[in-house]
Amino acid sequence: MSKKIITIGRQCGSGGHTIGKALAEKLNIPLYDREFLEEISKRSGLSEDVVEQEGEYSSANKVFNTATGFYRNYDMKDKASLPLREQINAYQMEYIKEVASQGPCVIVGRCADFVLRDRNDCLNVFIRSDLDKRVCRVIEEHRVPDEEAEMHIKDRDRKRADHYKYITGQVWGDVNNYHICLDSGFLGLDACIELIVKCYTE
Amino acid sequence: MSKKIITIGRQCGSGGHTIGKALAEKLNIPLYDREFLEEISKRSGLSEDVVEQEGEYSSANKVFNTATGFYRNYDMKDKASLPLREQINAYQMEYIKEVASQGPCVIVGRCADFVLRDRNDCLNVFIRSDLDKRVCRVIEEHRVPDEEAEMHIKDRDRKRADHYKYITGQVWGDVNNYHICLDSGFLGLDACIELIVKCYTE
Repeated sequence: MSKKIITIGRQCGSGGHTIGKALAEKLNIPLYDREFLEEISKRSGLSEDVVEQEGEYSSANKVFNTATGFYRNYDMKDKASLPLREQINAYQMEYIKEVASQGPCVIVGRCADFVLRDRNDCLNVFIRSDLDKRVCRVIEEHRVPDEEAEMHIKDRDRKRADHYKYITGQVWGDVNNYHICLDSGFLGLDACIELIVKCYTE
Repeated sequence: MSKKIITIGRQCGSGGHTIGKALAEKLNIPLYDREFLEEISKRSGLSEDVVEQEGEYSSANKVFNTATGFYRNYDMKDKASLPLREQINAYQMEYIKEVASQGPCVIVGRCADFVLRDRNDCLNVFIRSDLDKRVCRVIEEHRVPDEEAEMHIKDRDRKRADHYKYITGQVWGDVNNYHICLDSGFLGLDACIELIVKCYTE
């Protein structure tokens, strides 16, 4: 089966973004990660900050966990009438489908594995790593203060998990939702990139 | 980090045994899978059937889910005084540690990732696949009758999950317990073997 799209789910501090960026460069295909914020901001008329906070990291996601399957029955024409967070999710889904239809690309986060589940040309990847290694990484790479690093990681991961549950009705990081899951702390980022390229190009 | 031991957790019908066998052949190292049954039978004086049923597939595992962490505090000298199932688990753990100490090898199932958690030279692998592909595989390869295939898979997976929970206190197939998880149905067995060899030899 020929693969066109790489979706990457990732624990905070696992290097998922770095891996996505390197894959896009190596394969010479576009990367969509923080690029979503600018585009969704443009389409919705909301600031990038609001798009980020109300999207993948909304603290309200948890409250709505039982209202799963949002994306499944959503009518895209009704976006304007939706609450803020639903608007952003709807714009995001529309944009994910749009970029996927344009050709090969790498999409980081945003439940892209679920949004594109009806395509059969996606390689769905999940990147994890042990907490101690992720703590080191967010201190060094993301410049999070030492004493806040663990809390920062746990908070972001909790919000990502809640968001994934809210959108998909499924468990974030469940091995059954991915074609390949890698421990970037154990294997190293370079090895992860090589393994994913191998999966993608074979 | 140089890796010596490959442990393989696997969903029933995912081809985990076949992958383990091919890895052992390619890397020219021993494979331990059903080999456990013969050895544990010899050591314990119990039949291979009893060893298999009371070990990884014991229907009693579920009942004892709350009594987790069995392996953690177990004194190996007391084996003879233990109930049958605990005896088998104890022999199994002892044998896993023994073969791992003898040199590189591939170990399929038996919570080997957990039993060898204090070593830092293990590559822990989990093999999964979608249910429909696993159904085809157990019909073709394991000669399970068509009408029983799905039930057979679900029963074995439930028992493996219960056994893993009983022994380790953790969730079987949790992405956080493995260095690499692969969808053998999507990627193909040959690609899985190549990817694991790449992880092992780099």
